[in-house]
Amino acid sequence: MPASVWPAIDGIAYGGDYNPEQWPREVWREDVRLMREAGVNLVSVGIFSWALLETSEGVYDFEWLDEIIGLLHENGIAVDLGTPTASPPAWFFANHPDARVVTRDGVVMGFGSRGMASHSAPAYREAAVGIASALAERYADHPAVVMWHVHNEYGVPIGEDYSPHAVRAWRLWLREKYGSLDALNAAWGTAFWGQHYGDWEHVGAPAAAPSVVNPAQRLDFARFTDAQLRACFVAERDAIRRFSSLPVTTNFMANQHNGCDLWAWAREVDIVSDDHYLWAADDEGEIGLAIAADLSRSVGRGKPWILMEHSTSAVNWQPRNVAKRPGEMARNSLAHLGRGADGILFFQWRAGRSGAEKFHSAMLPHAGTGSRVFREVVDLGAKLNRLSEVRGSRVRADVAILWDFESFWAQDLEWRPSADVSHGERIRAFYERLWRDNITADFALPGDDLSSYKLVIAPAQYLLRSDDADNLNRYVETGGTLVVSFFSAVVDENDAVHAGGFGVPLEPSLGVRVEEHLPLREGVTTTVSYGDGSFGADVWHEHLDVTGAETRATYTDGPGAGMPAITRKEHGAGTGWYISTRPDAAGLAAIMSDVYADAGIAPLPAPAGLEVIRRTGAEHDYVVAINHGATDARLALEGVDLLAGAAVEGTLEVSAGDVAVVRAPRTAPGGGR
Amino acid sequence: MPASVWPAIDGIAYGGDYNPEQWPREVWREDVRLMREAGVNLVSVGIFSWALLETSEGVYDFEWLDEIIGLLHENGIAVDLGTPTASPPAWFFANHPDARVVTRDGVVMGFGSRGMASHSAPAYREAAVGIASALAERYADHPAVVMWHVHNEYGVPIGEDYSPHAVRAWRLWLREKYGSLDALNAAWGTAFWGQHYGDWEHVGAPAAAPSVVNPAQRLDFARFTDAQLRACFVAERDAIRRFSSLPVTTNFMANQHNGCDLWAWAREVDIVSDDHYLWAADDEGEIGLAIAADLSRSVGRGKPWILMEHSTSAVNWQPRNVAKRPGEMARNSLAHLGRGADGILFFQWRAGRSGAEKFHSAMLPHAGTGSRVFREVVDLGAKLNRLSEVRGSRVRADVAILWDFESFWAQDLEWRPSADVSHGERIRAFYERLWRDNITADFALPGDDLSSYKLVIAPAQYLLRSDDADNLNRYVETGGTLVVSFFSAVVDENDAVHAGGFGVPLEPSLGVRVEEHLPLREGVTTTVSYGDGSFGADVWHEHLDVTGAETRATYTDGPGAGMPAITRKEHGAGTGWYISTRPDAAGLAAIMSDVYADAGIAPLPAPAGLEVIRRTGAEHDYVVAINHGATDARLALEGVDLLAGAAVEGTLEVSAGDVAVVRAPRTAPGGGR
Amino acid sequence: MPASVWPAIDGIAYGGDYNPEQWPREVWREDVRLMREAGVNLVSVGIFSWALLETSEGVYDFEWLDEIIGLLHENGIAVDLGTPTASPPAWFFANHPDARVVTRDGVVMGFGSRGMASHSAPAYREAAVGIASALAERYADHPAVVMWHVHNEYGVPIGEDYSPHAVRAWRLWLREKYGSLDALNAAWGTAFWGQHYGDWEHVGAPAAAPSVVNPAQRLDFARFTDAQLRACFVAERDAIRRFSSLPVTTNFMANQHNGCDLWAWAREVDIVSDDHYLWAADDEGEIGLAIAADLSRSVGRGKPWILMEHSTSAVNWQPRNVAKRPGEMARNSLAHLGRGADGILFFQWRAGRSGAEKFHSAMLPHAGTGSRVFREVVDLGAKLNRLSEVRGSRVRADVAILWDFESFWAQDLEWRPSADVSHGERIRAFYERLWRDNITADFALPGDDLSSYKLVIAPAQYLLRSDDADNLNRYVETGGTLVVSFFSAVVDENDAVHAGGFGVPLEPSLGVRVEEHLPLREGVTTTVSYGDGSFGADVWHEHLDVTGAETRATYTDGPGAGMPAITRKEHGAGTGWYISTRPDAAGLAAIMSDVYADAGIAPLPAPAGLEVIRRTGAEHDYVVAINHGATDARLALEGVDLLAGAAVEGTLEVSAGDVAVVRAPRTAPGGGR
Repeated sequence: MPASVWPAIDGIAYGGDYNPEQWPREVWREDVRLMREAGVNLVSVGIFSWALLETSEGVYDFEWLDEIIGLLHENGIAVDLGTPTASPPAWFFANHPDARVVTRDGVVMGFGSRGMASHSAPAYREAAVGIASALAERYADHPAVVMWHVHNEYGVPIGEDYSPHAVRAWRLWLREKYGSLDALNAAWGTAFWGQHYGDWEHVGAPAAAPSVVNPAQRLDFARFTDAQLRACFVAERDAIRRFSSLPVTTNFMANQHNGCDLWAWAREVDIVSDDHYLWAADDEGEIGLAIAADLSRSVGRGKPWILMEHSTSAVNWQPRNVAKRPGEMARNSLAHLGRGADGILFFQWRAGRSGAEKFHSAMLPHAGTGSRVFREVVDLGAKLNRLSEVRGSRVRADVAILWDFESFWAQDLEWRPSADVSHGERIRAFYERLWRDNITADFALPGDDLSSYKLVIAPAQYLLRSDDADNLNRYVETGGTLVVSFFSAVVDENDAVHAGGFGVPLEPSLGVRVEEHLPLREGVTTTVSYGDGSFGADVWHEHLDVTGAETRATYTDGPGAGMPAITRKEHGAGTGWYISTRPDAAGLAAIMSDVYADAGIAPLPAPAGLEVIRRTGAEHDYVVAINHGATDARLALEGVDLLAGAAVEGTLEVSAGDVAVVRAPRTAPGGGR
Repeated sequence: MPASVWPAIDGIAYGGDYNPEQWPREVWREDVRLMREAGVNLVSVGIFSWALLETSEGVYDFEWLDEIIGLLHENGIAVDLGTPTASPPAWFFANHPDARVVTRDGVVMGFGSRGMASHSAPAYREAAVGIASALAERYADHPAVVMWHVHNEYGVPIGEDYSPHAVRAWRLWLREKYGSLDALNAAWGTAFWGQHYGDWEHVGAPAAAPSVVNPAQRLDFARFTDAQLRACFVAERDAIRRFSSLPVTTNFMANQHNGCDLWAWAREVDIVSDDHYLWAADDEGEIGLAIAADLSRSVGRGKPWILMEHSTSAVNWQPRNVAKRPGEMARNSLAHLGRGADGILFFQWRAGRSGAEKFHSAMLPHAGTGSRVFREVVDLGAKLNRLSEVRGSRVRADVAILWDFESFWAQDLEWRPSADVSHGERIRAFYERLWRDNITADFALPGDDLSSYKLVIAPAQYLLRSDDADNLNRYVETGGTLVVSFFSAVVDENDAVHAGGFGVPLEPSLGVRVEEHLPLREGVTTTVSYGDGSFGADVWHEHLDVTGAETRATYTDGPGAGMPAITRKEHGAGTGWYISTRPDAAGLAAIMSDVYADAGIAPLPAPAGLEVIRRTGAEHDYVVAINHGATDARLALEGVDLLAGAAVEGTLEVSAGDVAVVRAPRTAPGGGR
Repeated sequence: MPASVWPAIDGIAYGGDYNPEQWPREVWREDVRLMREAGVNLVSVGIFSWALLETSEGVYDFEWLDEIIGLLHENGIAVDLGTPTASPPAWFFANHPDARVVTRDGVVMGFGSRGMASHSAPAYREAAVGIASALAERYADHPAVVMWHVHNEYGVPIGEDYSPHAVRAWRLWLREKYGSLDALNAAWGTAFWGQHYGDWEHVGAPAAAPSVVNPAQRLDFARFTDAQLRACFVAERDAIRRFSSLPVTTNFMANQHNGCDLWAWAREVDIVSDDHYLWAADDEGEIGLAIAADLSRSVGRGKPWILMEHSTSAVNWQPRNVAKRPGEMARNSLAHLGRGADGILFFQWRAGRSGAEKFHSAMLPHAGTGSRVFREVVDLGAKLNRLSEVRGSRVRADVAILWDFESFWAQDLEWRPSADVSHGERIRAFYERLWRDNITADFALPGDDLSSYKLVIAPAQYLLRSDDADNLNRYVETGGTLVVSFFSAVVDENDAVHAGGFGVPLEPSLGVRVEEHLPLREGVTTTVSYGDGSFGADVWHEHLDVTGAETRATYTDGPGAGMPAITRKEHGAGTGWYISTRPDAAGLAAIMSDVYADAGIAPLPAPAGLEVIRRTGAEHDYVVAINHGATDARLALEGVDLLAGAAVEGTLEVSAGDVAVVRAPRTAPGGGR
């Protein structure tokens, strides 16, 4: 474990990826000068530099890196030093042609992009540890270096690997997991379609086949893939720790890439760091951002984290790369900060002239220092400088949303009842409801201790282990409020339907079993009556067997017509709600209003479009208020506006598009019930 | 030939696929008890059991199968014993890696699904005959076993194979077919694009190529693929016959998978059996069901057949797996019975907890015996028990629709005049017209003796051999009524345009030639005036050269504006109609009304939504009346309602969603003119 | 160089591809008789005959070809003799399995189609030169042969090749181009994503990879692919020239296939020839036709060219192959003639009964000589016979549109700012504006001497070399009018962003830099105010930094709201316009009206739908007036209507759907300013 879990820099970290190897030395001096102008105090260096650091196998050239790190240090800019293992050099693949990734269809991935190496190839593991060790040995004690940045975005652009090395590793992983073939055959249900294995060597990766491949096998392969990637990280991290006690991180892609089980990864890193990019087609990208930020905080169990990459404006890899509007970068940055980030970094410092990402925005765009973007970058640096005291404060939430990567992996396999069901859509709908109500949420695992939460929502818990179901039932019994969405508690950890049928493990809390799924035809919308009103529901109905709940809503039409749609059960000291269909965030409003009452929580009274988040420090709270709307907004608040440097006496005014951060009186510690 | 062509069970067969190997033995006893409760008298066993029966090459374990068959027998449940050759064990592919299927793009299919074996691989053929022989030898005389179920759904999920074994077999097949390369070059028209072959070894499978592959080669490859699959069936069947005189079947997929020429397959089986699944996106799935049932009866030349698989409710492999509504399973089942099925079986008895099809419905669902589905299963068993006397009766039709797999294969190749033309769509449109008019149809080949039909419809006879055209012309000349849809009689058996131009082979009957196809742009709809009215027509116009017909309809707009659209010719004692555009089933109403008059047939006067079918027995007729509508319906009829056990005195009342089966006075034998 | 650059035939060449090898000899005599009836004077023979001419490696059979060429000659029909190298025989691939094309995904292309040979395979090059030499040697002095037709549509159906032979050739090509790896690393920007090369043998083709491959590498691979194809042409051409002094051509696919840099190809052929097919989904296909014709003329630097293939009616390879309406074939043919074609040929003389293109129309359709198409073919032959004097006259244009294949290749790579931007769409929009205004345009390269043009338009000059930018700036400075569309001058020849930012190289002429691209979300339309009106603009806005231009239009809404949208700068003696968004052709009307005024040009006053083109001969002009409309049209004109044989005295009347060709007084030579 490192001596310090936070990099040795003052205040909020600010900066970005820096790739000096793309530029001549005359540009370096300008870069450093402009970084200082912008208030940059941390840059990530070396992430794609393997070919220039190890010019052929075992031959190192660190001179240029020495020089740039020295230059940064002279200028007071700390370095987050990358290991370049996301992109092995051309010589590596020439020397080890068997270390290439193979796709499900058997295509061997070529060089010329990034991420081509098989994470199961011994040669890759050895080479990665080699370069990481060499870097750690050389720079462990360099005063500029404050943190290690291993690899880049594990699992992206490619995670699954069907190469011979991967297949070999997979068999070993399975032997380790199952011990015996009998156990594997039972777990995978190989009696179905005649897939019984009599020899470990006959077990293959779930490569392309004429029809659907065994889903338990595919689920295990997702686990294996995650484990292989994580083993690579751990190997590099441990190599670094032989020389250095600085914190080690790797940049996650929360809410963008679900191939890595971030709960497990977060246990391996010293600091959680995350890359986040707006989805440009979504004109309320701030909601997806908030999910990503809350997830980054949650997997780190509430500790401050670093936004390792986001963009100053457009990205380059989406179909339509919409530029950020004036002020949007600051709103995004401070939303991350409000949700627990103590570092705000960008990909990238200076826009690259060449390569696949030349149209990605940067802190210093192609248009140079006279540009709107650079002016806003300088302004943001100044703002963050005024927020140093926020560092280390925590976000407290009364609500937890279950986020379980294994459940997502299982649910996303083929041949589910309806192609229109998406785990991500359900999480977004419930989260959006909370976001619009300015109720902050954590994410959690179904097996977590949930006792500190007043409300737990399970929007996408298709896979639910029996012991996790027991945990949820206990949570309700002891006073919690639980909301479960349709297609939940369907299968166990082997993607096998729970004995007794769908939803049975949660029957104690919910008072219902699901007799049959009733997916709707494409485009069909139906109505559900709720209280005095009704809402539209599409995609999914269910035939519920209500064994011990009150019916709170009924299907008006569609395949479920006349049958219960939403139920509520009081169980022990708590309450369990079940929503068997798909309302959107607006449709959820009335339901969730009743749920909030059960849970004893209340939406924050704030104008629509004003996002309000609170961090709690040792002495003060910090309220971040972000006005996404086109009109000025007011919020009842006392304190000091840290950016304006002015007192807030009862009412905070936030101009359209602006953000305020207010030092406010500390609330009672924690949330919970 | 087997001693008996019908399995030795009483009355209508009722049951489903049964996979005891997926369950512990304690479940077996419950299964058998519940089967008896449901009236099950036949189950299909062993279809995916190869890996558990032959645990390694040549090593057999029949104990568990002995046990379950014994248990079934003790309980009076007969066994349709499967050969498990649709899914060879893992050891087979490990021992014979060259026996895997290769796709058109060269991807070698992996294990973990089903259907991965190359049907041309000698090792596969040998192993399949081996396990079939072993089963036949052991169970030929077991009193529980009444029928053999070879393999499963030949051609699904994959039929075409481009493996080296397939290429070798393909060359042999071509040598056998053509005798000389000159004949092959002529048939394939290899002068086009310089594809002349000078050596048999140069002839390859029609694998992925830069542009379209020779269509005659592809058509032959479809024939070859069908022949290879059928040869596998024949080899297993003959192996079984060495030991057993019980009937042998394999389950077809009529109107769902067109890769097998069911006319040829039906000649090889003792009993036709068929699997049918509703297409969930179609909210009138009963029409597709009727097509499948009529086709199953027709390929068996009218003999009773077995519905080997259908579903009690939703399937799992469609994009949106809509559940059946209450009563729908019974309507479906009795529709099959009305169209000639003497057995109603399901996939599957008990819903499987694991594997790719865990969301497929079953007779005994995950929700258990308290479920709506199980109650309806028990009720259906009781109903079928009251219908024993229907067994063996026949369906007689006055109308034949041409259904020619070779024509479909040819038409579905690339680079046809319009991507919007679908052979299946045209068959459905004409069939739907007849179905709504309650006129029962057979399907037939263009070379069949059609003299017993008053009306023959050719909706999709793109490929028409000259001698088959002669047969159709003779049919008209001798008094038949023939309706031909556009894009017919275009090519011969080698996909070569008929000398003289499109449609020329049918000119004697139709009095037209097609000078030019006039496909419409996407989404364009035009109008055709017919009689006093008009109908909409999209996708296709033609420039007709009317050489001896009367023009019955004219294009009002579009590329054919002012030109003939529909023609009628009296030829000898009969009449030939030509419809050169695409009306839907509603648009066909007025035209077909005139056609019916020519043919001397009439729609049954029944309310819309009431499907009426008649089976004719030795002494009685049996009228099956299915009310698909939402209101009760009446039908003029005398007889005995077998399900209600009540007399029908002039009027049969069928409640909304219900089905009646009435023993009625026998009609004059046969239909025909 | 050949002795004569125009084939030795009288008047306008007329005919088509002729494939006698598909027919028995009795058909040949009928063909020749009907060709004479139709006025055919030139046919292309032997294009797909390799397998029949070289029956096994080195064994030739020319007898049948001698016979047909002799027969044609006896009947006064000249021969454009093809080399059959677009489709090597089956024996070639059997003997040289390594000479097959491999796709980006590693699929080895099979036989049975066409175009399967690797153009980098030494065996292919040798075999191609062999058959070309053999043909040239035998037929060089045959009096029927007047021209050589090498190969067929280079680059179609497949151009890129990733076979081992291609990779080897690619490395040699790169060594030749770059000399050193340092130069390659710099040009490709390999510092990005760690792609530095230390050994030539490590450089691979840009095959499938986990993410986007280096764009500079891909751009070079496009150049390499074009160069390899062209080298094949040159090798065959030079082989022919050893024996023959007749002109050599190969048929381009202008405005249909952009993989070949036609400017470079046109320098290698003696006569430009082009294949053109209407895009059936476009109901104004005549505009795309005009682009193709103008491009064919332009790459040949104004010399007459041959329309080597078009269709008499429908093609067969599009999704919906719409047939040509009566008169359309003549309108198409004379539009090509009006735009500089001195030969009008078709694919194909006689419709083929077999193979992939049996539904392609022909001069002699399946329906035979009684058909509308054959009548129109005969009529067109007679018309062309009346136009002999037009031959050799030239088209003069005052406007040039920049058409730069390298820019297209670069722009079409992945990860551009918006998937909705299409270089072809922008060219079409500007061209369509000119076409509707009856202003004839040439196409040109940005480095060309543009001084003869009054107006130059750059709709799609994403890639612009600095020296080409200088050329454009000089053009404006010396009095030219330049219109530049958005996303121009973005990158240099290595797909690297120009130093200083987007658009900087053209700042001297335009007075703007582009600070940031502002792509719009899908389907969003915005408004731009221009003069007294406004137009709709979608897909793209830009944030302009106006450094020295007047703002002529402003964004009313959308991301650019309030910012300049269109600018105009007077630079030296000329004017530079910049249009930073996407109006359609209608939206361009007002803008281009002002541009025309700057350039001193004016639309021709002609009714909508009347396309008017002028060719200038030594003594007369020839005005081709094509009425695409549904009503008769009038045009002010004096001269002689060559088709009607009547004087035109002040007003030419052109019936709906008809074409007139008028010998008119010669205009002043040339256009230009």
